[in-house]
Amino acid sequence: MGMIGGGTGSFIGDVHRKAASIDGLIELVCGAFSSNSEKSIQSGKNLFLPENRCYESYEEMILKEKELPEDIRMDFVAIVTPNHMHFPPAKFALEHGFHVVCDKPVTLTLDEAIELQKVIEKSNKLFALTHNYTGNAMVKQAKAMVDNGDLGNIRKIQVQYLQGWLSTAVESTDNKQASWRVDPKRSGIGGALGDIGTHAENLVEYITGLKIKELAADLGRFGKGRILDDDGNLLLRMENGAKGTMSISQIALGEENNLAIRVYGEIGSIEWHQENPNELITRWLDKPKQIYTPNGNGLYPESSSVTRIPAGHPEGYLEAFATIYKNFATHLMALKEGRNIEKPDYPTVEDGIRGMKFIYASVESDKNNAAWVKLN
Amino acid sequence: MGMIGGGTGSFIGDVHRKAASIDGLIELVCGAFSSNSEKSIQSGKNLFLPENRCYESYEEMILKEKELPEDIRMDFVAIVTPNHMHFPPAKFALEHGFHVVCDKPVTLTLDEAIELQKVIEKSNKLFALTHNYTGNAMVKQAKAMVDNGDLGNIRKIQVQYLQGWLSTAVESTDNKQASWRVDPKRSGIGGALGDIGTHAENLVEYITGLKIKELAADLGRFGKGRILDDDGNLLLRMENGAKGTMSISQIALGEENNLAIRVYGEIGSIEWHQENPNELITRWLDKPKQIYTPNGNGLYPESSSVTRIPAGHPEGYLEAFATIYKNFATHLMALKEGRNIEKPDYPTVEDGIRGMKFIYASVESDKNNAAWVKLN
Amino acid sequence: MGMIGGGTGSFIGDVHRKAASIDGLIELVCGAFSSNSEKSIQSGKNLFLPENRCYESYEEMILKEKELPEDIRMDFVAIVTPNHMHFPPAKFALEHGFHVVCDKPVTLTLDEAIELQKVIEKSNKLFALTHNYTGNAMVKQAKAMVDNGDLGNIRKIQVQYLQGWLSTAVESTDNKQASWRVDPKRSGIGGALGDIGTHAENLVEYITGLKIKELAADLGRFGKGRILDDDGNLLLRMENGAKGTMSISQIALGEENNLAIRVYGEIGSIEWHQENPNELITRWLDKPKQIYTPNGNGLYPESSSVTRIPAGHPEGYLEAFATIYKNFATHLMALKEGRNIEKPDYPTVEDGIRGMKFIYASVESDKNNAAWVKLN
Amino acid sequence: MGMIGGGTGSFIGDVHRKAASIDGLIELVCGAFSSNSEKSIQSGKNLFLPENRCYESYEEMILKEKELPEDIRMDFVAIVTPNHMHFPPAKFALEHGFHVVCDKPVTLTLDEAIELQKVIEKSNKLFALTHNYTGNAMVKQAKAMVDNGDLGNIRKIQVQYLQGWLSTAVESTDNKQASWRVDPKRSGIGGALGDIGTHAENLVEYITGLKIKELAADLGRFGKGRILDDDGNLLLRMENGAKGTMSISQIALGEENNLAIRVYGEIGSIEWHQENPNELITRWLDKPKQIYTPNGNGLYPESSSVTRIPAGHPEGYLEAFATIYKNFATHLMALKEGRNIEKPDYPTVEDGIRGMKFIYASVESDKNNAAWVKLN
Repeated sequence: MGMIGGGTGSFIGDVHRKAASIDGLIELVCGAFSSNSEKSIQSGKNLFLPENRCYESYEEMILKEKELPEDIRMDFVAIVTPNHMHFPPAKFALEHGFHVVCDKPVTLTLDEAIELQKVIEKSNKLFALTHNYTGNAMVKQAKAMVDNGDLGNIRKIQVQYLQGWLSTAVESTDNKQASWRVDPKRSGIGGALGDIGTHAENLVEYITGLKIKELAADLGRFGKGRILDDDGNLLLRMENGAKGTMSISQIALGEENNLAIRVYGEIGSIEWHQENPNELITRWLDKPKQIYTPNGNGLYPESSSVTRIPAGHPEGYLEAFATIYKNFATHLMALKEGRNIEKPDYPTVEDGIRGMKFIYASVESDKNNAAWVKLN
Repeated sequence: MGMIGGGTGSFIGDVHRKAASIDGLIELVCGAFSSNSEKSIQSGKNLFLPENRCYESYEEMILKEKELPEDIRMDFVAIVTPNHMHFPPAKFALEHGFHVVCDKPVTLTLDEAIELQKVIEKSNKLFALTHNYTGNAMVKQAKAMVDNGDLGNIRKIQVQYLQGWLSTAVESTDNKQASWRVDPKRSGIGGALGDIGTHAENLVEYITGLKIKELAADLGRFGKGRILDDDGNLLLRMENGAKGTMSISQIALGEENNLAIRVYGEIGSIEWHQENPNELITRWLDKPKQIYTPNGNGLYPESSSVTRIPAGHPEGYLEAFATIYKNFATHLMALKEGRNIEKPDYPTVEDGIRGMKFIYASVESDKNNAAWVKLN
Repeated sequence: MGMIGGGTGSFIGDVHRKAASIDGLIELVCGAFSSNSEKSIQSGKNLFLPENRCYESYEEMILKEKELPEDIRMDFVAIVTPNHMHFPPAKFALEHGFHVVCDKPVTLTLDEAIELQKVIEKSNKLFALTHNYTGNAMVKQAKAMVDNGDLGNIRKIQVQYLQGWLSTAVESTDNKQASWRVDPKRSGIGGALGDIGTHAENLVEYITGLKIKELAADLGRFGKGRILDDDGNLLLRMENGAKGTMSISQIALGEENNLAIRVYGEIGSIEWHQENPNELITRWLDKPKQIYTPNGNGLYPESSSVTRIPAGHPEGYLEAFATIYKNFATHLMALKEGRNIEKPDYPTVEDGIRGMKFIYASVESDKNNAAWVKLN
Repeated sequence: MGMIGGGTGSFIGDVHRKAASIDGLIELVCGAFSSNSEKSIQSGKNLFLPENRCYESYEEMILKEKELPEDIRMDFVAIVTPNHMHFPPAKFALEHGFHVVCDKPVTLTLDEAIELQKVIEKSNKLFALTHNYTGNAMVKQAKAMVDNGDLGNIRKIQVQYLQGWLSTAVESTDNKQASWRVDPKRSGIGGALGDIGTHAENLVEYITGLKIKELAADLGRFGKGRILDDDGNLLLRMENGAKGTMSISQIALGEENNLAIRVYGEIGSIEWHQENPNELITRWLDKPKQIYTPNGNGLYPESSSVTRIPAGHPEGYLEAFATIYKNFATHLMALKEGRNIEKPDYPTVEDGIRGMKFIYASVESDKNNAAWVKLN
């Protein structure tokens, strides 16, 4: 793996590195960690990389790695830059024969996302989008229960992603995470929408297997001077007639990373909280509430197969993230060995396009006083 | 207290009786428990009432009690009938000089509610509406924290009231609770809206001290053949610019009585769950999360004054309900003794009118594809 | 009901009155609320009792009530005094033909308890001991599950009753609850042992249906100058070979009323927390964890029959307490009507004797450096 | 790092590898993964190790690695074998100049542990014992709070480590984890005592900074034919006069990995649950309960410094485990670079000796009907 972005001090770069390394399948071998070439190289050294694999730019990295022998050169790039720098390196890498893992939202604009899809198809390379929460064992169980009809027809959805870290004007401090997220040039037309809303949208569609047909969005810009949304309240209508709400926020004071979902069907329902990720609450017509746990009793293989340790040994954010990398790596190895994988299990550019449509529809709805906008 | 409705087998009649009796201030002395005169009298006997205080109709009760000596006759009526039978007995009682406690929603129609307000004013009698959840000690603490500015300016609200008992067609069974609730003639134009939505609306306005300015409602009628809503997803805009979502449902399979609220301010936030009513979760800019408990450390007097037992001894649904009765009775006794009460603390017809406006605005919004409708 | 003790300002007297009144079966008709005759009478007036039913002493009350016509006089006395004043009025009431409800621990000494048992037998009157927690619907469910063999043979028990209110020297303040509890003359030889330990002991034996065979107790007296235990750590051995721990404390700083129990069998296990009383956690060999709720799915009739309101409407401390009174009143009414009740469901003097044996065994064990002492 | 034990299919070997790799400081370079030389080599290949670094025995590995150039050879060994195979390879490694990380309990016997201490001293090499739970950020916070006097003098301790996986005779199935744990030859004189009891003991002494002075242990052997304890109930007395209970079990049916601790001081108290590891519950004399979270508000640097991701992003079992490895690696790098580390923060052989004393004292106490036995 070669990394693009994620220099020393970066939050998400470090997360990607840890997630990629947990399962022992992936090794960081090179990187272009910053648009500042000096910082890039220093970051690589801090990570114990040999100096000749610390590159000054992603272009250099891709071109030089391509020249290395196959058993030495990186297999894929991991793109962990702000949103505006997803598409250019992804395209460059794919066109030069490298697979790509990319952070979300997939690109800066919807047009880029659609173009990226074409680039991927043409390249015949793999592309994974790190909607990391779908790697959680309880999310897998929830999806499997829906897929197996355990809940019956879905009627109602509640999803929320609540954070409070933008409650004050942290973008005026030296908080790098905040400064680019409130900047449309680097973030795109969505603020909280892109940063966390896409996770919520992806989780809904992943677990239920249903597309959001249309939405009505009432966005907030509570931080003084903010151009992009830092809060959103949405109504959802799913393709099967189910209805729901989505609440997202980065000004929900005191909330840390409160992503949660409830899905109600005709015969069963599920509830999951990211901050307590090792429980799946299920409710039933005629049985008491049941709490599933990773590697615990009664799980579908889709869930138990992604756990690493016995029941009662909590896995967290990094482990779910790692599952995306593991499944991607497993696909990659199969590819290299000429084996077929029936249904690779990680988010792709299609998820990315859904996410961009979600952002665009929400912004359009908000401009029209929360009128309904279709997602297609 | 004389009761109207609430015959043997009734759910809410029994709740009112238990709630009224807990604090030893109120005694059930008579009743017209059913529109069926035979059933009414048998119900009274089952409650150990003397036969001459078991009446065949509420009119009879009110007229005959009026003739009794003041120290014997009932002081007020408690109306616990289906919605369509709130206004007629309330008006009759008030016009004959009796105070009234009435279940919610206050009336069948908004017009009735407005007329009732006039009747009350003219009668110079007390009127309490049993939005029972506002009697909870943690709800009182939440309100006091907002009132004292502890949360700062409110920015975001999430409220939900989720039940699952109408997930199947229970109205086709002999479930009396269900049959009238799905019938517009007895329930009014709102289904879940009136039954539980008004509680959610009242809780929001009670805790925050803010009025809902406008709302957008997307209602569901998931049960086959249902005319009234059994599910609702709403966007809220408060008078101060705060935004939020409301989710209500009686088809949220497996949910029992999941009323919950989150209020986020600029410097603090609160979270309360009715099913775990003895905790108030608070979050802060620079302190760890704090959990308040009834009669525990750090409460405002508005909260500690409504608890009955030491911290750690859970009070529940009936106790919160009882607080409405207790505060009403305290007001009544003060009135009798010629004392003044500065700020009686129980819901009134004004809350009832807000509730009716909420129902009407929601239904209108829903008819117009969830367009915004103002509440005033 | 006539009350002995429980004057204005008393904690437990008020609890008994509220608990007795909730279900509408019992009416407070008279009382001797204090050993101070003036205070007694004032307390009765505060409770709206007619002056001629406010007595100066329990002896006066019992003798005078006896002279009243049967349909007017009290049916039973409720004794809510400190421990040293349980036996004398109980004996006096029974010998004069009144049934008795008495707070725990049943008496000041074990000898008194054994004598009381004889008095009861001879009197042919009813006697209920208010081990109130056994009235909880989830405790009933736990007991029913054990009785029905759902857990299999019991192997392990953990029980705790943790409070923190004696962490500081509150007995030196004007805290009346504290002053008598740390005084051997009024409390007996057990401090926390009698006050809360007997509840823990009773809960273990009630749920499991097993007797504690022997125990080893290491008591603490952490409060300066305290003669009686304010903390206890115990090992338990049950008659069937099960083992366990008991931890009780009134110096567990910050704990409010944390009574909790876990019972592990060969095929199932249960867990219950008094501070979250509306959940029964169950664990199974091959199923996910299941959470039962009052009036929820899957309950035994022994549990659902003691709930008052629908699932999701929390019942608390007072309601469980009220169940003891309700079952006692039901028994009493059956008796009056000449009906038989197969298995009256409330704690009796036998439970009281077990509690006293528990206290005595614990104190003896502690004196012998936590040596094993049998309970029989 | 070279690994001893932990071949394909092993639970704890895999845990050590993942934990060591998360932070990017440690690389697995070789291993002797099994006493079966063929299996050892195949396991190494499965881990993508070059064949010449897959050794047939730990002796071979240590001797051959020693011959490699310093920048290539392993820096330390990680011993992840059953208990009887801790001491021999540890001693061999240390005497041949390699640092050691070893799983707990440190050795098979107390004598071995004491001898190991001498070997370590003589070798001048580092030795870490993986009491992994002490790596958790909330455990660090708890310890820091005690160290800073926030709780005041400690009075009461409750600790439990409850599992249910030995509820049935799994040792008669092909469960390799079970078979050696119930075998005294491989496990030592303690069963659950060694496997989980030592974790509980270590956690108590780590957080409180107090030594267990003496204990009384009542052990259970509930599984048919088991020689070693599968359950234990203990009384604890700490060196400062605090008292407490410990409950450990592997037959607590349905429990997964329920390690939990409560520590009560004179002015504050803490509670932590391993299965919900991202919360530290604290209670106070005059403040509401406060819940600390990793990287959340109000933490001591000793806690915040061991977190890897922002608040609300759960870290779990592996991350706490990784902190032991990270701190060990940091110490090792400092050593290599000639820097000094003031207070290395990972468990050592001294912790190991305490654990062995705990096992021995417990077994002795149990043999004497739970008599008190000192730990020194």
